[in-house]
Amino acid sequence: MKKRQVSDRIRVKRIPERGIYGREDINKIFDETFLCHISFVMDGQPFIIPTAFGRKEDVIYIHGSSKSRMLLHLESGADLALAVTHVDGLVLAKSLFHHSMNYRSVVLYGKACLVTDKNEKMEALKIISEQILKGRWNEARLPNEIELKATTVLKIQIDEASAKVRTGPPGDDKKDLDLEVWSGILPMYVGFGEPIKDSSSSIDELPQSILKKMDNG
Amino acid sequence: MKKRQVSDRIRVKRIPERGIYGREDINKIFDETFLCHISFVMDGQPFIIPTAFGRKEDVIYIHGSSKSRMLLHLESGADLALAVTHVDGLVLAKSLFHHSMNYRSVVLYGKACLVTDKNEKMEALKIISEQILKGRWNEARLPNEIELKATTVLKIQIDEASAKVRTGPPGDDKKDLDLEVWSGILPMYVGFGEPIKDSSSSIDELPQSILKKMDNG
Repeated sequence: MKKRQVSDRIRVKRIPERGIYGREDINKIFDETFLCHISFVMDGQPFIIPTAFGRKEDVIYIHGSSKSRMLLHLESGADLALAVTHVDGLVLAKSLFHHSMNYRSVVLYGKACLVTDKNEKMEALKIISEQILKGRWNEARLPNEIELKATTVLKIQIDEASAKVRTGPPGDDKKDLDLEVWSGILPMYVGFGEPIKDSSSSIDELPQSILKKMDNG
Repeated sequence: MKKRQVSDRIRVKRIPERGIYGREDINKIFDETFLCHISFVMDGQPFIIPTAFGRKEDVIYIHGSSKSRMLLHLESGADLALAVTHVDGLVLAKSLFHHSMNYRSVVLYGKACLVTDKNEKMEALKIISEQILKGRWNEARLPNEIELKATTVLKIQIDEASAKVRTGPPGDDKKDLDLEVWSGILPMYVGFGEPIKDSSSSIDELPQSILKKMDNG
């Protein structure tokens, strides 16, 4: 295995001690969500689009309509930057200056390439689906030929990526520690509400995918 | 008031009926969070950085260390794209192809400019702070001269922005409606956990800002 490259582009500049470059830590940050934001350049202008993704090993898959402008542009080999961000809590210090957030974020730089092999395309769609809701792939009707053709899947190699993480309590100045201000952390998380059955659904029992998600949060 | 401009850059291309251009609807989407992702171009490459923001009227404020690369770059008049995204639920259809998400997202295109006036800078920091946790500004120690100098505040005019929204049940094909698959919505939300008091804090009673946040979600 080659030594992990830490290019200038991914080296964390501000508060470098928050920088993380290990692939396992980065993968964990990817795997706790399915939403990313992708940035790219068209005619010199920056664009940004939120989209779902799935990860397997060193690859991020994204998908969408075969008519999607973003996918067509990225498919042509354009550079992209992809970000995933979790806000874990508000850091409430005694001074406003030291207010902060606990967060975990990853930025991945690279290029996308089109998945053309039919088996890999199906597998990629499963990976994205499973990232969004584990187990759902086996509960619903699989994509047919026409649906597969209407869908573009791209893959991005996780090669140049870095994470930035803040955890722990507020970092107040010593001189502020005696101020009579409540300080601490207000944790934040993504929650799931009561499932809403569609009127077309005759099945009352919740599927395993949802039951597991609601158990595990 | 001039007629709202819908430039080609902000017109929603994929599924145009999900496009929203009204300022009030856009503001509501901004105001339900404090996290945005900002995309910009340096040396032809796309970059993306998550950051906090605050909105007042037609202006988005962001802030950070006066040494922040992103802020220095944006301050110089670079184009940016700023995105805010809420995922409101997973849309679970009977076919995997019609799986989707309910979401509300805004993308704003523009340029940032440096806030130099001291009063406006202080007011902008308050707007950002209040967007993150309403009421906190009056509970903690205000920024002093040195802290203000170490902080850069930029403002972005909300001029060219559009929202994309999906709500409602799955949109399955008619031929799939009889499939024995549970279909519906799994709602998602951002939750707040039990506050964790810092060891330096002698006050047990939670501040009003947190109490209100936990009441309102």
